[in-house]
Amino acid sequence: MNLNPYWVSGFVDGEGTFYVGINHNSTMSVSYQVLPEFRIVQHKRDIGVLYALKKYFQCGVVRVNHDDRYELRIRSIKHINDYVLPHFDRYPLHTQKKFDYIKFKKIIGLINQNIHLSEDGIIKIIDISSTMNRKDKTKAQEIKRLIIGEYKVHTC
Amino acid sequence: MNLNPYWVSGFVDGEGTFYVGINHNSTMSVSYQVLPEFRIVQHKRDIGVLYALKKYFQCGVVRVNHDDRYELRIRSIKHINDYVLPHFDRYPLHTQKKFDYIKFKKIIGLINQNIHLSEDGIIKIIDISSTMNRKDKTKAQEIKRLIIGEYKVHTC
Repeated sequence: MNLNPYWVSGFVDGEGTFYVGINHNSTMSVSYQVLPEFRIVQHKRDIGVLYALKKYFQCGVVRVNHDDRYELRIRSIKHINDYVLPHFDRYPLHTQKKFDYIKFKKIIGLINQNIHLSEDGIIKIIDISSTMNRKDKTKAQEIKRLIIGEYKVHTC
Repeated sequence: MNLNPYWVSGFVDGEGTFYVGINHNSTMSVSYQVLPEFRIVQHKRDIGVLYALKKYFQCGVVRVNHDDRYELRIRSIKHINDYVLPHFDRYPLHTQKKFDYIKFKKIIGLINQNIHLSEDGIIKIIDISSTMNRKDKTKAQEIKRLIIGEYKVHTC
């Protein structure tokens, strides 16, 4: 199965997700880690398409998502920079998902400049990611309040 | 928004449906009408993409699907023959949806030959459509039993 690049963007417009998670990680200088992720989830009957997409992007892992659903997941910043962003810059999305992509790319840009390693940077990233994916962002906002609180303790 | 044909197939692989309904219609010679339909459903925020697809296929109607969801719906046999089938024959689908498309095309072929106007033809179409879309086909199977029953009454 050889995928045309425009087909890939059409399919991702329907089925793909650009996601940025913020997880607690005590080994990080600001205690929180930014985890960008590009994924495509399919029922197991279409696992072949996920492997074709993995081949197309030359990276990623095909793994169980939940129950009988599988995903192609690309988390490596290097792979996102080298393969994911160049694809979507050249073969653009058309649905509202393109705005998620623009925000995702902006966050990758901040990570590339190591801005995510500062408290201000994490807060900036939370503010951007909170407007992505139209899902509940309670956790991210709670982390932001925690960081702001901790920051105030340090500076007062 | 100008859509690349491959983008269209990729998007339909994720979001499109090839559906064949069988409805009771007392004005038809066999009392049942075959209603093939190609549709793409989107949240209203992406209604612009539906209009771009309508422009691409040069046919169809954009209308409410349910709640805040809209659909591009193409039902005309002539439009399906002239615009939908030529597109997907040239720019193929890659997911398991391609098998729905193959069955859909087979049923359109039967309609083109007026085979759907006979009881045997309706039964043949029900048998094909029952294996499409992985949804509950109770109604179609019930219609088939009704037709077979009626047919037996006529011939005994």
